[in-house]
Amino acid sequence: MTTFHRRPLPDTLIAFTSPTGRDMLASAMAAGDAAAFFPLVSHLHTQAAPAWCGFGTLVTVLNALEIDPGRVWKGPWRYFGEELLICCKTLEEAAAEGLTLGEVGCLAQCNGASVQLHYARPGDDGLNAFRQALLASVRAPAGPFMVVNYDRAALDQTGSGHFSPLAAWHAPTDQVLVLDVARFKYPPHWVPVERLWKAMCAPDTSTQAPRGYLLIGKADTAEKPEGLDALVARLQGMGVPLMCTPQCAPTVG
Amino acid sequence: MTTFHRRPLPDTLIAFTSPTGRDMLASAMAAGDAAAFFPLVSHLHTQAAPAWCGFGTLVTVLNALEIDPGRVWKGPWRYFGEELLICCKTLEEAAAEGLTLGEVGCLAQCNGASVQLHYARPGDDGLNAFRQALLASVRAPAGPFMVVNYDRAALDQTGSGHFSPLAAWHAPTDQVLVLDVARFKYPPHWVPVERLWKAMCAPDTSTQAPRGYLLIGKADTAEKPEGLDALVARLQGMGVPLMCTPQCAPTVG
Repeated sequence: MTTFHRRPLPDTLIAFTSPTGRDMLASAMAAGDAAAFFPLVSHLHTQAAPAWCGFGTLVTVLNALEIDPGRVWKGPWRYFGEELLICCKTLEEAAAEGLTLGEVGCLAQCNGASVQLHYARPGDDGLNAFRQALLASVRAPAGPFMVVNYDRAALDQTGSGHFSPLAAWHAPTDQVLVLDVARFKYPPHWVPVERLWKAMCAPDTSTQAPRGYLLIGKADTAEKPEGLDALVARLQGMGVPLMCTPQCAPTVG
Repeated sequence: MTTFHRRPLPDTLIAFTSPTGRDMLASAMAAGDAAAFFPLVSHLHTQAAPAWCGFGTLVTVLNALEIDPGRVWKGPWRYFGEELLICCKTLEEAAAEGLTLGEVGCLAQCNGASVQLHYARPGDDGLNAFRQALLASVRAPAGPFMVVNYDRAALDQTGSGHFSPLAAWHAPTDQVLVLDVARFKYPPHWVPVERLWKAMCAPDTSTQAPRGYLLIGKADTAEKPEGLDALVARLQGMGVPLMCTPQCAPTVG
């Protein structure tokens, strides 16, 4: 079997650790466009299996939101790991199939987050709305944070469908910092917003499931977030492949 | 059993995600004192068991150094996880006992790093040498990186012996950014250099093993790093409890 120690980042993307990438973070921080970076990078988690990018992303975001899972992870500690997220697909099924955007949103909501789901459709209106939502998210130190589902091939990366959180925006070049959860392959890097958007507009070639983005915040009962039943009904009404159901909420104790 | 969702950071320490903590990083970056932050935070790993802070620290540092483990982690990917580091203690032994400073250094060297080990002894000379080594390490974008072994109690934190990497230095307040690998307990935070030094000078109360710090770099054969045999002989000559031996080098293939 051919094995890999990382993959070279395409020349058109900028590594976070490069001098340019570091300067871009400093600029984004000075402009207030990197508030989300701090909590997200504090909990950035490596996806633990090749098809677990959705789980790795949720572990990162739910811990960055400081959501208490209400269940023990290891020792006496309540913290999110992949094993706490399973409620509708087994880890083995998820390892084989991965998760759809709807399933990732559903799992977040099952586990104490509020979720807004947006499908990407080609066109300037969608791109502009995405950029506006992105700016609001990177400026929010306590969330909601943005998670994107995109096709790696459209970024000249190896692989196909992928999930990762977004942490900062660099205004002068209109690029976004992707905290790629496949850190063994591509550590964090900057991507032009418009290229990322195009990579989000490509549907899954095998399931035809649409891609897009999620805004995941800490559920506040005072804000009356969309209930899980309503979310599932809405997703099912849109014909989204969805394994997660209202009955799958994990036991809390 | 009492369980915990994080622990409150003592008032005398500054959270990385707080407004002050964020400003301190911006200041450190502008001064060139946060070059190590970028690769280290890109690979910051949560320790996977209560006594695995040494393993979690090594996973972070060896991946930040971009060392190729020469063995597969998961799927086709060569990347460091705890399970690749075991060569002399089983994971179960390590989970029960933790690792000494010498053992962490030895494991790093077994796995392709060059290691300098320094024991902390009370006194200004030691503190000044530590600060100088710290400054050199945070200014180095490709390492060597600094790992410290200290007593949490001396920082008013719960727990006792701990390992973590250091990522940045804030000159105006003489504080250092600790990328605590127990992220479920204390996410990254700033600590005054002198307090950290005092916490490193406290020996392990059960084994009397001295604490201190390691400078871990990518081994360069042209630089003729101290060989594993010599390191082990030197540590044994100092009477350091050491389970790791020259024979324990992992199989590479």
